[in-house]
Amino acid sequence: MNSFGNIFRTSIFGESHGILIGAVIDGCPAGIALKEEDFLADLERRKAGAAGTTPRKEEDLPEIVSGVFNHTTTGAPLTVVFRNGNTKSADYEKIKATPRPGHADFVLHQKFSGFNDYRGGGHSSGRLTLGLVATGVIAKKMLPDVSVTATLIEAGGNRDIEAAIQKAVDEQDSIGGIVECRVQGLPVGLGEPFFNSVESLIGHTIFSIPAIKGLEFGSGFSAARMVGSEHNDAIADATGQTFTNHAGGINGGITNGNEMVFRVAVKPTSSTPKEQQTWNRETNTVESFHVKGRHDLCIALRVPVVVEAVTAMVLADLMLVRKTNFR
Amino acid sequence: MNSFGNIFRTSIFGESHGILIGAVIDGCPAGIALKEEDFLADLERRKAGAAGTTPRKEEDLPEIVSGVFNHTTTGAPLTVVFRNGNTKSADYEKIKATPRPGHADFVLHQKFSGFNDYRGGGHSSGRLTLGLVATGVIAKKMLPDVSVTATLIEAGGNRDIEAAIQKAVDEQDSIGGIVECRVQGLPVGLGEPFFNSVESLIGHTIFSIPAIKGLEFGSGFSAARMVGSEHNDAIADATGQTFTNHAGGINGGITNGNEMVFRVAVKPTSSTPKEQQTWNRETNTVESFHVKGRHDLCIALRVPVVVEAVTAMVLADLMLVRKTNFR
Amino acid sequence: MNSFGNIFRTSIFGESHGILIGAVIDGCPAGIALKEEDFLADLERRKAGAAGTTPRKEEDLPEIVSGVFNHTTTGAPLTVVFRNGNTKSADYEKIKATPRPGHADFVLHQKFSGFNDYRGGGHSSGRLTLGLVATGVIAKKMLPDVSVTATLIEAGGNRDIEAAIQKAVDEQDSIGGIVECRVQGLPVGLGEPFFNSVESLIGHTIFSIPAIKGLEFGSGFSAARMVGSEHNDAIADATGQTFTNHAGGINGGITNGNEMVFRVAVKPTSSTPKEQQTWNRETNTVESFHVKGRHDLCIALRVPVVVEAVTAMVLADLMLVRKTNFR
Amino acid sequence: MNSFGNIFRTSIFGESHGILIGAVIDGCPAGIALKEEDFLADLERRKAGAAGTTPRKEEDLPEIVSGVFNHTTTGAPLTVVFRNGNTKSADYEKIKATPRPGHADFVLHQKFSGFNDYRGGGHSSGRLTLGLVATGVIAKKMLPDVSVTATLIEAGGNRDIEAAIQKAVDEQDSIGGIVECRVQGLPVGLGEPFFNSVESLIGHTIFSIPAIKGLEFGSGFSAARMVGSEHNDAIADATGQTFTNHAGGINGGITNGNEMVFRVAVKPTSSTPKEQQTWNRETNTVESFHVKGRHDLCIALRVPVVVEAVTAMVLADLMLVRKTNFR
Repeated sequence: MNSFGNIFRTSIFGESHGILIGAVIDGCPAGIALKEEDFLADLERRKAGAAGTTPRKEEDLPEIVSGVFNHTTTGAPLTVVFRNGNTKSADYEKIKATPRPGHADFVLHQKFSGFNDYRGGGHSSGRLTLGLVATGVIAKKMLPDVSVTATLIEAGGNRDIEAAIQKAVDEQDSIGGIVECRVQGLPVGLGEPFFNSVESLIGHTIFSIPAIKGLEFGSGFSAARMVGSEHNDAIADATGQTFTNHAGGINGGITNGNEMVFRVAVKPTSSTPKEQQTWNRETNTVESFHVKGRHDLCIALRVPVVVEAVTAMVLADLMLVRKTNFR
Repeated sequence: MNSFGNIFRTSIFGESHGILIGAVIDGCPAGIALKEEDFLADLERRKAGAAGTTPRKEEDLPEIVSGVFNHTTTGAPLTVVFRNGNTKSADYEKIKATPRPGHADFVLHQKFSGFNDYRGGGHSSGRLTLGLVATGVIAKKMLPDVSVTATLIEAGGNRDIEAAIQKAVDEQDSIGGIVECRVQGLPVGLGEPFFNSVESLIGHTIFSIPAIKGLEFGSGFSAARMVGSEHNDAIADATGQTFTNHAGGINGGITNGNEMVFRVAVKPTSSTPKEQQTWNRETNTVESFHVKGRHDLCIALRVPVVVEAVTAMVLADLMLVRKTNFR
Repeated sequence: MNSFGNIFRTSIFGESHGILIGAVIDGCPAGIALKEEDFLADLERRKAGAAGTTPRKEEDLPEIVSGVFNHTTTGAPLTVVFRNGNTKSADYEKIKATPRPGHADFVLHQKFSGFNDYRGGGHSSGRLTLGLVATGVIAKKMLPDVSVTATLIEAGGNRDIEAAIQKAVDEQDSIGGIVECRVQGLPVGLGEPFFNSVESLIGHTIFSIPAIKGLEFGSGFSAARMVGSEHNDAIADATGQTFTNHAGGINGGITNGNEMVFRVAVKPTSSTPKEQQTWNRETNTVESFHVKGRHDLCIALRVPVVVEAVTAMVLADLMLVRKTNFR
Repeated sequence: MNSFGNIFRTSIFGESHGILIGAVIDGCPAGIALKEEDFLADLERRKAGAAGTTPRKEEDLPEIVSGVFNHTTTGAPLTVVFRNGNTKSADYEKIKATPRPGHADFVLHQKFSGFNDYRGGGHSSGRLTLGLVATGVIAKKMLPDVSVTATLIEAGGNRDIEAAIQKAVDEQDSIGGIVECRVQGLPVGLGEPFFNSVESLIGHTIFSIPAIKGLEFGSGFSAARMVGSEHNDAIADATGQTFTNHAGGINGGITNGNEMVFRVAVKPTSSTPKEQQTWNRETNTVESFHVKGRHDLCIALRVPVVVEAVTAMVLADLMLVRKTNFR
């Protein structure tokens, strides 16, 4: 349930306030140079600390505990872990009684009859995306000719991101945003019709990222308002380059050799500083409350590197699967 | 590659102009009443024939060839097939030289070095969605307390669908649309955090449907422009009902007991009657051409029943998986 | 539940007395020449008719209904079906009351609360191995440099198989046998330590064949009585050839470049002509009875080609997976 | 590649001389009491130290690092790790040049072009079975009404195990053995015909254990020499109890409610103290050598608890899957 991938396959585990979180990556090819330092740049992009992000400062130091020998992948399952050092569990005791709106507190309690680790969201915490980012770093190394770049192109409805963050800080209410991902250098032919279409696989993993509520490829929702003669991308040459790119680089679920483009809608951080209402399990009444704990005003700031990670993860897997299209 | 599901698992097979297409459904529980007539209503909704849809009139008669005995599922793999009776392969010979824009002709040729069955799109044909619809009929029977309803709420940018279709007919250009799906009666607790979130699984299967380019849950892309205090749905009572439903019935990847709502963007049918340009493999030049064959002006008209099918398929599987949350 | 394989993946479906049985093969590479005639030699080896085998003579004509175009695999799911022409369901009505010893009648009834198709064993029928043999034919084509040869080396405890069969006919009691499989031409390096060891994958599929009760690789059970200095195969050269082959061509779960050798124990056909005892569901007493229907005295005669098929299936998959060991 | 299970699914990772080894268990139900102490009894059974077993004394202390809260499983992925404290890597440097007969040294080097961690067998080390044993402890807790008991019934061809071990010590040559596993308390109906037969799943996991070369159910290889009227187990009553149990508790791949019985052949420990021959990669000649390092004379002594573990793992999964046989 917490794994994804066909050949290159990741399992993530851990809880926000547990001992450690991590990822086991199976099917990672042998012979890829990999040091712990290689993770730091992308981990830094994910890190808390910027204006609008949480003051919780984890060290987020990755430890490779299996699958690497002499700074090179061995072909055996590769495990990366992150210790949880800076946890204040007491902040979360109140969650037991008052499930936070927008969070998974209520559903996890119901789903697991109260056995879930509720501290900081437990296994549902955004902290688990450390494992995704680590996987993404390895996946990117498997794709030396491919560039995967995600950018926050809009926050709180504003294309000027800094202004949007400042407004959120001033108004003390959380905001969302839109992340765009562009992938260059893909060959023609990744993906399958139907269940393993590129959009299906990207969709599966993108919606695995907390706070994502929408995804569109190429012209996306705008395509629904175009006519066919406008939307179709005429093929220009033997490499499959098209004069336009409304399809976002995918036809019939399969990459067409053009830039892959998609956009992702990130909801406002559920933990807003504003007063909210929720049902209290103990009193069985609806009451006002303020979220405690350390939170981001704009979680969308931290999403691009995670979007890149899961995208690279899917593409690395598809590049391996592609080798099996012929005997 | 052409299968999906954990316990309730579907594999689809066949080509547009082959002998037959079908679906094998593994993990279908025993004891469900099922006759071939049960498929007809949903198949009718998918069928060609309405204004704006293709004049190709398949009989689309389902044959249950395994897994059912005395009009009841047996627990063994359940197979439904549809014979292809009304194929005009000659229409498609030109595809070999001139890949149609918006279609998978080019990418399939490249992916499979020309070994693909190009007639009518081959295995990539929308005709394969017959297998999805058949699966959906069975999945719906597994969900007697759940209603899954998808509707075309907009076509060609117009909420008056009939007017939109008439305009497409008049202008002889294909159009797209937006399909909304609403699911009522779901329990709290379906889905997992991360890789098997409900959005991930729905996303995976929705993007398996040809022509889908966007998907949003609840407020979706609008959520990216809300503030947290506006977007969060306050929990009202012990059943998890919320005062609003911006989340579309899902928190942290898990159903929260409210109505599940999502919208899907359908691109305009790739086969528009308008003149188009494409690269010719034989002459290696770009040339004008008209798509031949029998096609829909608004494929979005046929999409709602397929959206329902893949949604029911995911939910039926999750309802089975849910039984394993406890020993 | 009825599928196996990582990339090259087979699903089998159908019932003994249903409309048809078959196999859907996903992940079959494109570009392999394949005609229906190609199946006939192996199907003939599986066929009933020899002394000691059942007088039920199915035509067993394979029909390729998807995945092949111009007599070549396309890369799309490949489906082969066999119609069931010669069924006498009335023979099996008695099974409802008196489950046959050695058969799955009782367990299927309990497992599926009586919803199973009991006629001729339903989905559990040995007839389903037609789908395995068909898959094996394709798998062998994917392994042009590999020979997979299984032979019945002993029947009823006798190395003279003809004599053993004659004795069974004379005594009108069914017999079992031992099948040995030898695979030549494998590269070093197929398989993984632990869960995907070659022995694990072969074990999984060999025990999928009805009537198999034992499996040993190389020296097998005899190895348990050897000392290490006797059992170890000393490596002779850079290709990994060993002076002896007690390991049966596998070290640490991975092929070592020597001949792969394993043996399979086939139990006596459950449907013996001899009088037997069983519990009667209607009378709730134990009673004597004779099995009706058409059966083999020595099902082991038909097993070698099925052993070859599932072995080739595993190896074809591993050869594809092997391509992904490096980026 | 290093995972197994449908719902209850285990992934193992780590290397003999790496930082730690462990297992991630997905699909573990919530609400199961679990403390680290619970692992100790089975870990002790697996431990080195007895006569005939290796003098390497790992502490083998399990740490639960995810999936447990308040000493109870949460339903999130459960991870158990074991630190590697007592490693002498220098012992293994010679492996690079002289692959040890019977071990995976040669095949791993070839498979991964020399990138594998060769120290102590790396990921192929028997030390990884710690993760299997830990999984087994949890699986047994999921099966409170089932007893799974494996015993070494023969070592070096001798039913008197102590005498066999003494002989091995005296002769300074390693020996193998036969382990028998008996499972009581299983319901009728676990397993599927064909690919997910109980024998297939048990076979898959049993052959995942290092050093296993044979497996037989019930009468096993002896069944191949019986006649049908002798081998068939007559059904005695409505619970499915049979008068005999030649089938080892399984009919048609499905449990029949009788005791499940199977036997496993364990080869002699590959690391025998006796002088051996092997090819030297550097000199490209065959040379004599002695295995260095710390090893068991009779690895079979440590196998029973691992056999129990993988058996319980399969059965726990099947018990969960069984809940999905009906809607």
